[in-house]
Amino acid sequence: MKKGQRPIVISQVRPAVDDGRYPVKREVGDCLTVTADIFKEGHDMLAAVILYRRQDEPDWREAPLRLADNDGWVGSFPLEANTRYSFTIEAWTERFGSWADDVSRRAEGGQADLTSELLEGARLVTQTRARAAGTDAALLDDALARAGAADSQEERLGILLQPSLREVVARLQVRQDATRFDRELEVVVDRPRARFASWYELFPRSQSKVPGRHGTFADCIERLADVRRMGFDVVYLPPIHPIGLTGRKGRDNSLSAAPGDPGSPWAIGGPEGGHTSVHPALGTLEDFRRLVTAAERLGMEIALDLAFQCSPDHPWVREHPEWFYRRPDGTIRYAENPPKKYQDIFPINFDCEAWEALWDELLRVVLYWVEEGVRTFRVDNPHTKPFDFWRWMIREVQDRYPEVIFLSEAFTRPKVMRELAKAGFTQSYTYFTWRNFKDELTEYLQELVGSDMVEYFRGNFFVNTPDILPEVLQRGGPPAFKMRAALAATLSPLWGMYSGFELCEGAAVPGSEEYAGSEKYEIRVRDWNASGSIVEYITRLNAIRHENPALHAYRNLRFYASDSSHVLFYGKMTPSRDNVILAAVNLDPFASHSATLAIPLEEIGIPAGETYELHELLTDVRRLAHESALAVELDPQTSPAHIYRVSRWSRREQDFPYFR
Amino acid sequence: MKKGQRPIVISQVRPAVDDGRYPVKREVGDCLTVTADIFKEGHDMLAAVILYRRQDEPDWREAPLRLADNDGWVGSFPLEANTRYSFTIEAWTERFGSWADDVSRRAEGGQADLTSELLEGARLVTQTRARAAGTDAALLDDALARAGAADSQEERLGILLQPSLREVVARLQVRQDATRFDRELEVVVDRPRARFASWYELFPRSQSKVPGRHGTFADCIERLADVRRMGFDVVYLPPIHPIGLTGRKGRDNSLSAAPGDPGSPWAIGGPEGGHTSVHPALGTLEDFRRLVTAAERLGMEIALDLAFQCSPDHPWVREHPEWFYRRPDGTIRYAENPPKKYQDIFPINFDCEAWEALWDELLRVVLYWVEEGVRTFRVDNPHTKPFDFWRWMIREVQDRYPEVIFLSEAFTRPKVMRELAKAGFTQSYTYFTWRNFKDELTEYLQELVGSDMVEYFRGNFFVNTPDILPEVLQRGGPPAFKMRAALAATLSPLWGMYSGFELCEGAAVPGSEEYAGSEKYEIRVRDWNASGSIVEYITRLNAIRHENPALHAYRNLRFYASDSSHVLFYGKMTPSRDNVILAAVNLDPFASHSATLAIPLEEIGIPAGETYELHELLTDVRRLAHESALAVELDPQTSPAHIYRVSRWSRREQDFPYFR
Repeated sequence: MKKGQRPIVISQVRPAVDDGRYPVKREVGDCLTVTADIFKEGHDMLAAVILYRRQDEPDWREAPLRLADNDGWVGSFPLEANTRYSFTIEAWTERFGSWADDVSRRAEGGQADLTSELLEGARLVTQTRARAAGTDAALLDDALARAGAADSQEERLGILLQPSLREVVARLQVRQDATRFDRELEVVVDRPRARFASWYELFPRSQSKVPGRHGTFADCIERLADVRRMGFDVVYLPPIHPIGLTGRKGRDNSLSAAPGDPGSPWAIGGPEGGHTSVHPALGTLEDFRRLVTAAERLGMEIALDLAFQCSPDHPWVREHPEWFYRRPDGTIRYAENPPKKYQDIFPINFDCEAWEALWDELLRVVLYWVEEGVRTFRVDNPHTKPFDFWRWMIREVQDRYPEVIFLSEAFTRPKVMRELAKAGFTQSYTYFTWRNFKDELTEYLQELVGSDMVEYFRGNFFVNTPDILPEVLQRGGPPAFKMRAALAATLSPLWGMYSGFELCEGAAVPGSEEYAGSEKYEIRVRDWNASGSIVEYITRLNAIRHENPALHAYRNLRFYASDSSHVLFYGKMTPSRDNVILAAVNLDPFASHSATLAIPLEEIGIPAGETYELHELLTDVRRLAHESALAVELDPQTSPAHIYRVSRWSRREQDFPYFR
Repeated sequence: MKKGQRPIVISQVRPAVDDGRYPVKREVGDCLTVTADIFKEGHDMLAAVILYRRQDEPDWREAPLRLADNDGWVGSFPLEANTRYSFTIEAWTERFGSWADDVSRRAEGGQADLTSELLEGARLVTQTRARAAGTDAALLDDALARAGAADSQEERLGILLQPSLREVVARLQVRQDATRFDRELEVVVDRPRARFASWYELFPRSQSKVPGRHGTFADCIERLADVRRMGFDVVYLPPIHPIGLTGRKGRDNSLSAAPGDPGSPWAIGGPEGGHTSVHPALGTLEDFRRLVTAAERLGMEIALDLAFQCSPDHPWVREHPEWFYRRPDGTIRYAENPPKKYQDIFPINFDCEAWEALWDELLRVVLYWVEEGVRTFRVDNPHTKPFDFWRWMIREVQDRYPEVIFLSEAFTRPKVMRELAKAGFTQSYTYFTWRNFKDELTEYLQELVGSDMVEYFRGNFFVNTPDILPEVLQRGGPPAFKMRAALAATLSPLWGMYSGFELCEGAAVPGSEEYAGSEKYEIRVRDWNASGSIVEYITRLNAIRHENPALHAYRNLRFYASDSSHVLFYGKMTPSRDNVILAAVNLDPFASHSATLAIPLEEIGIPAGETYELHELLTDVRRLAHESALAVELDPQTSPAHIYRVSRWSRREQDFPYFR
């Protein structure tokens, strides 16, 4: 074995995903707290810094680390830019500090003769003098002169142990034993909307107000005001491209389309073009640009669907037959995602020999839309394409446009979903859609925010999608819609709904989660003023989200005790605890349940016995309390959820100017 | 970013320490169970193997991995040799298996026309045929011929789905997408005594039977039979080298030695030589060889002390002044391990510029004694020398002599102790010596065997050392000595004691853990037949250990419920559960305590209500029981510990030949 010294052990550096194989994720404005175990043999004192830089910077910056306890160190650095940062750790032996520590203990221990120790200290100062300039040099010269002239050992010791001297020497001395951690770790710093946003999905072709007429981008522009009023930030559109005729699906996923059936927007491509073309019935590219601009003016953004698959009529099928898998009989097999069959869609063969050209073309598609102003993409079925394709593609896009957000629509096995997030997806759909009861919600959320998933996986909690009308919504009626919206909107800073949810549309193809009369296969013009709408409820939820910073964070979720198995009780607070939100949700859409909630007063910072205010934000009703046990009754018909803002009532006369 | 495909994700490979930066440890005869997450995008079926090899083998061997659940795979390979093994994982797409799975589902799902699928299957068989020979080739030819001639789709399908065909194709087909895990992991396979041994420490110079006469290796040989009778496997000797005169310590660590005071054996080196010399008063090198041989004949081995430090009279101080740190005034400072001061010892300066020559010389010392037949070393204060020195030194020795065992004597901060084990130490002293009460013992043991420490840190539970007479032994008298011995001997397969323990020597320097009249500074000839000896108790403990394989394992420790805070209840069993040991220990040496123990019948494999036997092994008393609650009374004066062997009573008439 080769001899070699790495004098200092630096290990367990966190945050890191799979030992640094994947970056962690944060948002602009965060501070990244870094921890590590740092130690060496013996009893020397160490010093350590975080080295960090943005990906466009050649040189490391430094942020201090301090010893917390048990050889564990902690520090942090600011994440100011929407880019990728690298970081690692450097540690060294603090020779002068070790000397000062040792000599102090000897002096305190009563060692009479410190002559040799004082010579050692002076030698270290002298060595550092050679690296000093300006006021530092003057300070060192002065200390050395005074120590040399000192009359007594005590006086000399006092001069050499001066904090100002110690600071200068610590800063300038040679970093003896300097050791770097053996990996550079990465943090992807996204814009804040990567973490906090409300999504609304709508089919542009259904936005016409006239039944029978194909909706247009112009209709969408008119609809934006409604969406904004409800408080949504992102308007996500299913594919807007030409739709194929070959194999086109009819109503309710039937195999033969009737004349006039519009087909599934996911059967992308026809004679009019493919992934960079716009469906003529929706309007022109210019119309699309107007929609993007109109959304921006309202403080929203348009998200597009990236579905890398083709109708048999897509230009690629003709121009790039090498990108499709041909069977021994010469045919191309249509796509399947068992048990679903997509007779109107050909999958792209990522295993093909021409994969490099294919990847380039797919990147070109994304960049095309980015250049048209799109900054958010919802990616269809990413789990059927190679992880390394996504890693490359997302990186290529974000190196040019770091603000681009990718949402992974993978409803598949847990480790595959996690791997997509590790590969670079900004956000991910989750199993929330199928978690209904107290234990399963608690367990799943604790996995999301309490395991290392929190470092790389941002769950976007959709209450429904065009493909998924969950059982609870089919069976529970409006109370279930309200309950699920309240859960999604408060458990996660990212939530979304597919339009129709606000009308409590709950009719399914029997025995499935498919919508009856699915909008995937037909145009559905809705009466937004129909009775039974819960628009006001959703509007209130989004307003509460916007007004309360505690709900903008992801990892601050905590569960608290409620004595009913039907009532989930949880909360979020800001680090300073000046915004504290508690939510109690009745998970049973059929019956009223009462519960006693354990308000976590100590965690909130309310001294026992002190009176505090509970402001129920959905009803705007306030009350005072001073005990930790809170009795509630949650009637799903009227109020399936209570969302409280908790605040201390602690100002005293001294806090006001007129007292002084 | 560069385009590139690693088609299959292989991650979370276990066992691994710090992502494979350090090897895990096992013993000859073990099987290493390996787990990993393995998956790719989409729905293809995968196959995977462990690749493993001994460090002297150029080629990988393979052991199968099978999918357990949730993309987790498991497999194992045998550890047959006392050496280091490397292992990693390779996975690939099982094309034919994926095809068979897909076509079967289609057939079951009622797809009428499978023509194209059958063509694809036949193509895969044909491709594999090119790689086959002998009976494999014949089987493939036969299958292809029969499939080609088959009258119906069903018949053709049946031929292509035959298990024998599938086995051959799976074995021979190209490993499509073949992907290796990105690290090679290591396992150090030690001889079994690395895990299971009882250590006995004695000072050779005290083994004379005549007070006043310096003991010799010949005296040690005479003493070996006693040690063997007590059941010990390893006899560990403090340093056997010449002792310096300069700074020599007198009795009770006094600063001036009286004439005739022998000095501390750790003040190594004098005119007679240094680390490769023998103290003349102990005998010659030839005498030492005889001692090594005599121990071997009794099935024991001699362990030496490696204390890399020097008396001021050591030849190195004169011959290699560059290995010592000289202060500005030209002096060498004596060693300190605060608050202990070693005025008779110079530390070696591992930071010196000549460190490479120094490392070589220290390696030479170790190899010298290995070549004299020593296979076990107890290393003094390793935490004051660089971790990388140990990593290199242990590797150099074990590459030549893999059977060599190193015990780390580091009583220091937890992460430093762990790092020494990671660097290669076979065994480590522990905090057991200071863990007295139920919660602290449970917590510490669960850390040792329930965290990843179990992969690399083997705790050797010493009940005392020449430096440490713990408070419980100072205060608790013989009941404490028995209780601590019973704990150490059953909690860990590695335990040790320093001689005098069996005589319940408990007199300390007041306010310290130092022995009064410490043997470190004087010769102590003991009367081994003195009254109050607990030799018989220790002998019984070691016999129980040898007879019960459950006590030979480290990681099988489990704690069970006892309703007394003074009674610790735990157990160990073999994987087959044919040897089950339960131990209940009263941790209070002063008072009797009763407890109800919860016998873990289900874990042991005893059906509820079945009668079983409890054999108390210290007293050889048996009883029958059939309930899980067991009431015990533990009187520290007579029986501070009960050690039960639990066995089913389940033979029936059918189990005997005369029934047939």
